[in-house]
Amino acid sequence: MTDLKAYIQEKKELVQQELKNQLTKLDIPEILKKSMLYSVEAGGKRLRPILLIASYEAFGQRKEEVFPTAVALEMIHTYSLIHDDLPSMDNDDFRRGKPTNHKIFDEATAILAGDALLTYSFEIVGGEAGLTDEQRYHLSRMLAKVSGPSGMVGGQLLDMEAEDRPVTLEELERIHTLKTGELVRFAVYAGAYIAGADAKQLAALEKFAYYLGLIFQVQDDILDVTGDQEKLGKPVGSDEENQKSTYPKLLGLDGAQARKNQYVAEAKKALEHAGAEGSILMELTDYFSNRDH
Amino acid sequence: MTDLKAYIQEKKELVQQELKNQLTKLDIPEILKKSMLYSVEAGGKRLRPILLIASYEAFGQRKEEVFPTAVALEMIHTYSLIHDDLPSMDNDDFRRGKPTNHKIFDEATAILAGDALLTYSFEIVGGEAGLTDEQRYHLSRMLAKVSGPSGMVGGQLLDMEAEDRPVTLEELERIHTLKTGELVRFAVYAGAYIAGADAKQLAALEKFAYYLGLIFQVQDDILDVTGDQEKLGKPVGSDEENQKSTYPKLLGLDGAQARKNQYVAEAKKALEHAGAEGSILMELTDYFSNRDH
Repeated sequence: MTDLKAYIQEKKELVQQELKNQLTKLDIPEILKKSMLYSVEAGGKRLRPILLIASYEAFGQRKEEVFPTAVALEMIHTYSLIHDDLPSMDNDDFRRGKPTNHKIFDEATAILAGDALLTYSFEIVGGEAGLTDEQRYHLSRMLAKVSGPSGMVGGQLLDMEAEDRPVTLEELERIHTLKTGELVRFAVYAGAYIAGADAKQLAALEKFAYYLGLIFQVQDDILDVTGDQEKLGKPVGSDEENQKSTYPKLLGLDGAQARKNQYVAEAKKALEHAGAEGSILMELTDYFSNRDH
Repeated sequence: MTDLKAYIQEKKELVQQELKNQLTKLDIPEILKKSMLYSVEAGGKRLRPILLIASYEAFGQRKEEVFPTAVALEMIHTYSLIHDDLPSMDNDDFRRGKPTNHKIFDEATAILAGDALLTYSFEIVGGEAGLTDEQRYHLSRMLAKVSGPSGMVGGQLLDMEAEDRPVTLEELERIHTLKTGELVRFAVYAGAYIAGADAKQLAALEKFAYYLGLIFQVQDDILDVTGDQEKLGKPVGSDEENQKSTYPKLLGLDGAQARKNQYVAEAKKALEHAGAEGSILMELTDYFSNRDH
């Protein structure tokens, strides 16, 4: 476990350096750059890019060609947080203990910074070297698909719609799969694709990613009931307060735990099918499942 | 001139049909689709996609392979209008005589519809058939560049910053070049690129597009002084009222006219260098320069 933590820390730092490099080199209006950098540097676990890199390395590769794509994915995630936090959306003043983008800058600048991060990710996905144009185009198009109306943006809209009414477990899983699962799918798929995994392996990995996304969400819901406020860095019990549909609410706490364990088993089975059973992805699955923050 | 009008009308209808096709086929949350379609179908001159198609045809091609890219460009333009109209941006309740997206839906949905159109354009640019992946990747990346922080979004931010202070003619042209000129550049470039124009021709066309973008803007400013409110479909004199920096304000009305004529001459010279002097692009230049709405 200590090794895994060191691995995560090492990749996190590399991702943060690359994020900074990709933005500071831009010749763009100063305030726009500041606003983009503010949210990109405001912390976060960097789970998506780390997962992408881990998936890449699971297929035997260890080069830098993977970083631009990992960073493009993190920019998409960051833009979605900036827009989510806006007054007309979730109206959040703080994220990860820091004022949200529109509180530091203004709403108009926050909207544009989000638009800019989203658009810029399509400029850097695939990177400058190492991949063919065919591979780059494939990645770019998949990134658009997972983050657009059939993916993340669609999920955000469904999530908004579901706020004021009870939802079934099926609906809940559809929302999560679109809102967060699709980017997780991209992370796992893109890493292995860049490393040269074959079609059968990629199909198994997409299944793995599906369960991994759900594991992440179930644990999020569980932590909101059982978690330690200090470790989480946010108040617990907020789902209950907001009358949000969650796994513990729909299945009970034990039921949610059991469901999560079932997903962990499915995820690991898919990893074996992909031929990645000895990889760091296996450890990451347990890590996501057991995390306390 | 009647022929040109018929040409414009014909392409406009084809573009509108393709826009509708690309969106209706999507399997996405209903309200998101409605919101995207609402703004895409709310009218507009479709100048960018028509220009893209005209540039394509100037190099001897007449096939359908060009339409997805033309439509991707129009979606980018439409998303930028939706976000521009938001209360925290220009706070416009009407556009082209119809309520703006956030007035019909709500702010959150309008933000997401804009995000969705922007992202989806990267899914369709280059189309399904007719181009190589290399060509598609090239177009996708250029589209990101012209519409992102180094292009349109950067221009929007500069435009916002310039609202409360006088700007020089140089600053004014930089704002316009980024905010509107970059998408015009994409239109002219992409059409010719898809048609197989060579590097020398493309370079000349980029020069042409630069002047064409400026012609469009000068005429916009002139019409705000001399235009017919009914033909324009919007009140004249609003720039003066908003103390906006414009060509007539900085150069006088005659000076602005003279400047425009100079740009027309430069644009036509560039078209000749591109070997496109007999094309519809020549007529479109005069059309843009002399339009009354």
